[in-house]
Amino acid sequence: MDESTSIDLAVSTVIFALRPHESGTSDNAELAIPLVRRTREPYAARWSLPGGAAEPAEALADTAARKLVETTGLRPAYLEQLYAFGDPDRSPTGRVVSIVYWALVRPDLAATAIDDDNVRWFPADELPELAFDHNLIVRYALWRLRTKMEYSRIAHALLGDTFTLADLRRVHEIVLERRLDPANFRRQIEASGVLVDTGLTVPGGRHRPPRLYRYDSSVQLADNGPL
Amino acid sequence: MDESTSIDLAVSTVIFALRPHESGTSDNAELAIPLVRRTREPYAARWSLPGGAAEPAEALADTAARKLVETTGLRPAYLEQLYAFGDPDRSPTGRVVSIVYWALVRPDLAATAIDDDNVRWFPADELPELAFDHNLIVRYALWRLRTKMEYSRIAHALLGDTFTLADLRRVHEIVLERRLDPANFRRQIEASGVLVDTGLTVPGGRHRPPRLYRYDSSVQLADNGPL
Repeated sequence: MDESTSIDLAVSTVIFALRPHESGTSDNAELAIPLVRRTREPYAARWSLPGGAAEPAEALADTAARKLVETTGLRPAYLEQLYAFGDPDRSPTGRVVSIVYWALVRPDLAATAIDDDNVRWFPADELPELAFDHNLIVRYALWRLRTKMEYSRIAHALLGDTFTLADLRRVHEIVLERRLDPANFRRQIEASGVLVDTGLTVPGGRHRPPRLYRYDSSVQLADNGPL
Repeated sequence: MDESTSIDLAVSTVIFALRPHESGTSDNAELAIPLVRRTREPYAARWSLPGGAAEPAEALADTAARKLVETTGLRPAYLEQLYAFGDPDRSPTGRVVSIVYWALVRPDLAATAIDDDNVRWFPADELPELAFDHNLIVRYALWRLRTKMEYSRIAHALLGDTFTLADLRRVHEIVLERRLDPANFRRQIEASGVLVDTGLTVPGGRHRPPRLYRYDSSVQLADNGPL
């Protein structure tokens, strides 16, 4: 096939995690995205989504997860295909179709320092101008995350194994960018039947320590679509 | 690039339309899908989804719509990306990643005879064994159509410009495969505010002829995702 008429196939991933707000107290978490600084043209020195070329013998989701570990050291708690971005003009050096995934990473993993000057966490709502159409891709991934959080059970992938109802509500508030009434939230979550009371409470000497919950283990942690 | 390590990129489309039930009266419509008989290996003589190779200079959705017209003569009233199917083993002759779209076609267009022995409509729930993973793809597209019809305003793309509430309810009943209470359906549709009363009624001498509605023109007919 002639080089000028070929289509390259890439796989990229938008990764979300909750991280402490840089300027705030430890109580203040924000939605953050790890980006990789490009070292080659096109868009050398611009920040971009982790990813790389699709591999002929590897499933697309496996390529996404592998590239994610290789570039950022992060293993996703949730991984789902987002969209195939294929605008003919999205790369200045030839046609590249990107199969984009989105992933959620737990806070303990996201808190580990990344030992690479070319990889850095950014607040999801304060991104620089990224390479290619990656700003557009992140906006779409944010929309998908918010939509999915309202009707699905994915918030757990941004939390540890056990959490309080207040922790869970805070995840929803940060992602959805609005306050939620604590009593309403508790009613809705309890009615959904997805939480298991661990019987434990938050350690410490408080008078009425908050209960610790976990998600029902029948919850699917990875959604690979129809496959 | 070595032939054995390349990845081919294809675009295919699952097309849905309402067609008269072959064995029934004109009152009985069913959800149908046009398929194309393959004339080459692999899977020669098997039925398959319309599609073809991605074109370097053409947007993916444009390739999907063009292939659809070229093979079936059908122009979609609605077209949306479904999923990128990329299992390494889905084609016996090398790696092929298929960007799959799904489309809805209006009944007047779907009623036009297709002048090609290798193109034929099949009832969506009575498909033969198709080429590649196309049975899996159709099942996923059916799931997406049903999910989308419950929270979105796409039923109009399976109807003509004007329709009665009974027509609209029947589309939902056929796609969702269950009876809907006429009074509840009317209440929900009226509350959604998406219908415009044309002021017209179904022609004929009936005592109380049903009213004709159309969708609000602000409804988006094509959803190309984030682009």
